[in-house]
Amino acid sequence: MDKRNVIIGQSGGPTAVINSSLYGIVFEAMEHSDRIGKTYGMVNGIEGFLEGRYLNFAEALPGGNLEFLKSTPGAYLGSCRYKLPDDLSDEVYPRLFEKFKELNIGYFFYIGGNDSMDTVSKLCRYARQIDSDIRFIGEPKTIDNDLVLTDHTPGYGSAARYVAQTVREITMDAYVYEKKSVTIVEIMGRHAGWLTAASVLARKYEGDNPLLIYLPEVDFDEGHFLAQVESALEDNINVIVCVSEGIHDSKGKFICEYDSNLGTDTFGHKMLAGCGKYLEKLVRDCLHVKARSVELNVNQRCSVSMISHTDQQEAIMAGRYGLQVALNKGITGKMISFVRCSDDPYVVACGLENVDEVCNRERHVPLEWITGEGTDISDDFITYALPLIQGAPMIPMGEDGLPAFADRKKRG
Amino acid sequence: MDKRNVIIGQSGGPTAVINSSLYGIVFEAMEHSDRIGKTYGMVNGIEGFLEGRYLNFAEALPGGNLEFLKSTPGAYLGSCRYKLPDDLSDEVYPRLFEKFKELNIGYFFYIGGNDSMDTVSKLCRYARQIDSDIRFIGEPKTIDNDLVLTDHTPGYGSAARYVAQTVREITMDAYVYEKKSVTIVEIMGRHAGWLTAASVLARKYEGDNPLLIYLPEVDFDEGHFLAQVESALEDNINVIVCVSEGIHDSKGKFICEYDSNLGTDTFGHKMLAGCGKYLEKLVRDCLHVKARSVELNVNQRCSVSMISHTDQQEAIMAGRYGLQVALNKGITGKMISFVRCSDDPYVVACGLENVDEVCNRERHVPLEWITGEGTDISDDFITYALPLIQGAPMIPMGEDGLPAFADRKKRG
Repeated sequence: MDKRNVIIGQSGGPTAVINSSLYGIVFEAMEHSDRIGKTYGMVNGIEGFLEGRYLNFAEALPGGNLEFLKSTPGAYLGSCRYKLPDDLSDEVYPRLFEKFKELNIGYFFYIGGNDSMDTVSKLCRYARQIDSDIRFIGEPKTIDNDLVLTDHTPGYGSAARYVAQTVREITMDAYVYEKKSVTIVEIMGRHAGWLTAASVLARKYEGDNPLLIYLPEVDFDEGHFLAQVESALEDNINVIVCVSEGIHDSKGKFICEYDSNLGTDTFGHKMLAGCGKYLEKLVRDCLHVKARSVELNVNQRCSVSMISHTDQQEAIMAGRYGLQVALNKGITGKMISFVRCSDDPYVVACGLENVDEVCNRERHVPLEWITGEGTDISDDFITYALPLIQGAPMIPMGEDGLPAFADRKKRG
Repeated sequence: MDKRNVIIGQSGGPTAVINSSLYGIVFEAMEHSDRIGKTYGMVNGIEGFLEGRYLNFAEALPGGNLEFLKSTPGAYLGSCRYKLPDDLSDEVYPRLFEKFKELNIGYFFYIGGNDSMDTVSKLCRYARQIDSDIRFIGEPKTIDNDLVLTDHTPGYGSAARYVAQTVREITMDAYVYEKKSVTIVEIMGRHAGWLTAASVLARKYEGDNPLLIYLPEVDFDEGHFLAQVESALEDNINVIVCVSEGIHDSKGKFICEYDSNLGTDTFGHKMLAGCGKYLEKLVRDCLHVKARSVELNVNQRCSVSMISHTDQQEAIMAGRYGLQVALNKGITGKMISFVRCSDDPYVVACGLENVDEVCNRERHVPLEWITGEGTDISDDFITYALPLIQGAPMIPMGEDGLPAFADRKKRG
């Protein structure tokens, strides 16, 4: 029997470990060189692939260079935000499968979030229509941790570690002056508050900052917010408030919309920025207290110093597992999930979920984990999240003393 | 002869290693317990001390707890922005020296920047007037690297490492999409561009980002800026631009003033924020290209993962040296400086400078190090700065897997 080839794509926003998932798939494919031929990467996802852009890992990252993927932020292959048409009779499908045939693809992997699982779902359904035997596997990825049917997602642990440690550091910075002050920390998460909730891990002792935490799962009310900040200021000189970028009022209007110039991305999602700045000004104007805001911004998803070892190893595990089940069991149309076997000791195993049931759905922080009239996070969340941020992997350093990355832009 | 006591204060904005300087002084004082009695810390600098707030290190950080100072961000003792009166006949001076007498102070250390050296200078001059034998030593500290008469300042190396690594990470994040984009990174530095210049260290190869770097040493012109960005976009899909928060036009007006609500701090310095956001909007509106901005914010000065080992060790060295020269040579009225003996291998020694000549002056990036029509940084700067960001010290971790800090706020 002819050896079939593997192709892998990355899609959506990057994370600190999306390249660890990629590493896991490529590594496992090379381990099975008796049954797998080449391993290709789509450059800029399905969109770049349609333009004929792809690479061969044996040439792009020969030998030990593959290892650098494990500590390279961004998406090594480049990403896209391309949505396949809902209509499976669209001309793009036969065009894609013709290309798969040319490259003798047997196994297709797509690393991404909700929208990427939608791509896997459509390709798999089309394959069924035309009796293609290509296996389609979704590899989960998102700092937002909002995919359904999985305990958590690769990328979340590292971003949560970034949030926890950085908020702890910002707190130390705020404690420097004895003048009453409020610091607003704006954290990523459009609809799900998982990442903002991780700020609770920053507390060093009971009663430590952050004193107030606001997730998008609960409607935000400016009047309540001001009263809660004012009350916190009675007993504390420095108050740290953590807010999700996606907090909104009871009408569903984002708080940042009260102050910003907004656009939409190609999926029609609203582009958010600035609820931190808005609340900073609100606090200063209404409570007449020193206020500042810190937007954690893209560093949440691209800081390699904050990679969680647990997260990195799980991303690699998910990548390897995906290749194994596609190759050995002929699995297709599934997303790799994480199933938690035990909290203490923390044990996680890989599972398989139907991509059709994952795509275009969002998982939110359970309301029972949001306490203190919508300003605090329960211990159940801490039990859930703490294992995910553990450990610091070795980061290979270059001659300049800075991390050495696998950079596709630099060739030759 | 009676043993005399030591007192130490911290002042101005914190850095990642201001507590390493503190550690150096306390450690060295304990090494000389035959000649030194107690080691006190002023809580919130000279301002808190005037209110009677101070601590005894033997009680606050007994035994091995002192070690945590080396990786604790913020200012352990708390800081202040209190300016002593210019008039040495003001009643505050006898009040202070009465307190020094009560505590049997023989050695006074103040860790800070320009404004703190002003405090040391005034106390030393007053001491001369009243024939006090207390020794006054200034310990340099600033991420801005703008103190005169020293090769560099403790705090700069770690902040520069943060800027270099973070800009390298942001670049990888930007490379993810193939759509033309401009990312503006706003870096601290009101009048001196040392920290913004460190962004040049982020380049992985010739022609890599950041492609444009703007320091406050050169007048900023919006027209030139737009033309330079447009030109960079011709050959590059993703353009990273690094700007100092303090860039200003030829009339001296800060660029952020064109867009922000401003206040002033207690020294009358303008509070800056937002030139990144302003330029982001300018690029989007004028060049019709995707634009985003990232304000590195306080993480530049409080990220312990980015502590440079060189910086940390030099901060400790400066602290120890200060205690040694005050105790053994009776030195007073001096700031500890760094004298570079060699670039390769990098060798630095401590020196002594007259605080009167340090305070209220600023050191800027030499204009000959600013190249490319004010948009690039020369190799001379790289030779200067690269040794300062080297090495990653061990950070002690707590049971929760996050850095364990020495936190004065938590008592008992």
